[in-house]
Amino acid sequence: MDIEEELNKRADFFNKQLEKFLEGGHPEILYNAARHLPLAGGKRLRPCLAMISCEAVKGDITKVIPLAIALELIHSFTLVHDDIMDNSKLRRNMPTVHIKYGEPVAINAGDLLFIKAFESMHNITGDCSVFKNVEFGFIDFIREICEGQQLDINFEERKIVNEDEYLEMIRKKTAVFFQFAAEAGAILGEGTQEEINALNEYGLNTGLGFQIWDDYLDVSSHEKILGKDIGNDIRNGKKTLIAVNCLNNATGNDKKLIEEAFGNLNATEKEVRQVYHLFEKLKSIDYAKNTAINYVIKAKKALDILPNSNAKQLLLELADYSIKREK
Amino acid sequence: MDIEEELNKRADFFNKQLEKFLEGGHPEILYNAARHLPLAGGKRLRPCLAMISCEAVKGDITKVIPLAIALELIHSFTLVHDDIMDNSKLRRNMPTVHIKYGEPVAINAGDLLFIKAFESMHNITGDCSVFKNVEFGFIDFIREICEGQQLDINFEERKIVNEDEYLEMIRKKTAVFFQFAAEAGAILGEGTQEEINALNEYGLNTGLGFQIWDDYLDVSSHEKILGKDIGNDIRNGKKTLIAVNCLNNATGNDKKLIEEAFGNLNATEKEVRQVYHLFEKLKSIDYAKNTAINYVIKAKKALDILPNSNAKQLLLELADYSIKREK
Repeated sequence: MDIEEELNKRADFFNKQLEKFLEGGHPEILYNAARHLPLAGGKRLRPCLAMISCEAVKGDITKVIPLAIALELIHSFTLVHDDIMDNSKLRRNMPTVHIKYGEPVAINAGDLLFIKAFESMHNITGDCSVFKNVEFGFIDFIREICEGQQLDINFEERKIVNEDEYLEMIRKKTAVFFQFAAEAGAILGEGTQEEINALNEYGLNTGLGFQIWDDYLDVSSHEKILGKDIGNDIRNGKKTLIAVNCLNNATGNDKKLIEEAFGNLNATEKEVRQVYHLFEKLKSIDYAKNTAINYVIKAKKALDILPNSNAKQLLLELADYSIKREK
Repeated sequence: MDIEEELNKRADFFNKQLEKFLEGGHPEILYNAARHLPLAGGKRLRPCLAMISCEAVKGDITKVIPLAIALELIHSFTLVHDDIMDNSKLRRNMPTVHIKYGEPVAINAGDLLFIKAFESMHNITGDCSVFKNVEFGFIDFIREICEGQQLDINFEERKIVNEDEYLEMIRKKTAVFFQFAAEAGAILGEGTQEEINALNEYGLNTGLGFQIWDDYLDVSSHEKILGKDIGNDIRNGKKTLIAVNCLNNATGNDKKLIEEAFGNLNATEKEVRQVYHLFEKLKSIDYAKNTAINYVIKAKKALDILPNSNAKQLLLELADYSIKREK
């Protein structure tokens, strides 16, 4: 099975529905700003996860499309607002929405994506109580994303955070997204409670692995590949698992170096490079990599109770894929 | 009937429920930032409107509380984000959320209020299809509010807008809020379709009158009373009905003056005063005042089909009140 091909097949199907859903709208500038990010491509991992999770419990994939669109719109909304908060200038090798359209339009476009996500949720067909149940989970995970974003902001102002605090932050900021996508896909696919729970567990652990791998990629690749500014993370004092591990383990001159350069907006190119070398020296990069791998092992284990199927195989490979991707 | 007393009675009841709903939450700074505006008082006109509308169709007022909370939270969310977009420093005589907590926290706090509003909607009890119907209207009007906010932003960059464009903007930015509050209150109060339509019409026209009166107050009172910076509106080229009327009717030197000072961020105190005097000279202030009054007459007329009751009397007085208030 070619995982990229399988994902692309579903992403293509999904993209057609998403484009149709986002057509038109007035005033045009607001809708153009709102479409800028979601129609700029991307892996569509969250929609695919919901679709494949539905398939894995032998559900009807078309029933999960309104949810898949809502997930991608919420993902886009968080990126648009986060880019303003972080003052990021590039995303997917393009100017961010606030750079292209200005901050007021970007804030408003994020809000529009937010409400359009709920509009899409209302296209879910079938039993009203199932809709209400799924939408309640949707609301719950979005609330956690706001909380996770705040933890992330708080962490920037703190000298040090411990690993548990870091894990709470990425669970709320990222992993709940995968957790809900997988769980809701199984609910709309009419899976058993045992299957729904298994996919919830799978989503959570895949999400944790995915985010830690993202941290790992941020420092192990360079600007051209990722399309965003790496030095930013070190200068902003972004508490990735790598940084958290390094901050908690550095001693002597190493400790002094990282305390001076990390989170220092005026850190030079040289200092940024020195921090990077410290990450390597203290094996913090390896530590993050192995932690991501362990979450993926746990994610795959959760799928044991599912009957064998192409979709199950795809989920297993998707978990592996989330720690193999290079962009 | 003492309208202020009747409103306060309902606002007090509402405030208790709102405070309870907004208790707690982690991280604390995010929840404190989110509570800053909704717990700072205010008239609670939108929640009261939903409650009284429910009473007017002989409904059970407690059933409308989750909706009333959701309305106030959406109102707060729009104010928090709008204050960032407009760079406003004061609101209700207090620093705005982004001034007090910084912009990243304020954007995030607005997003949290947004999602908490949906959380409150899910406390609506009773028939699931009624919930879904009301929530769909809720989504629809929030989308219109985003569109209205964008029209407002677009207008700032335009030299002139006509009255129809202005009316579309305030309908979307403000009036749909009153329209939905009144309509949804009647739906949850189990009113007849005729009653629901009447309250929809009442809410729309009261909302239009309210917003135009707000424009009128902005230029006919001063900073101490309103707790916000008046000069801002003239310097930012804010297209109120007064400004729209003046821009469309000024000729000769008057036209030259307003074209130079209006929308000029560097306009002096003296120029701001001159623009104000031009509003008076061309009777644009009177025009706005009379337009507001006419909408209120239309709003009250829509209530003719309702049976007489204390609630109906209160709605009639509330419409009048919206163009009598001085703050």
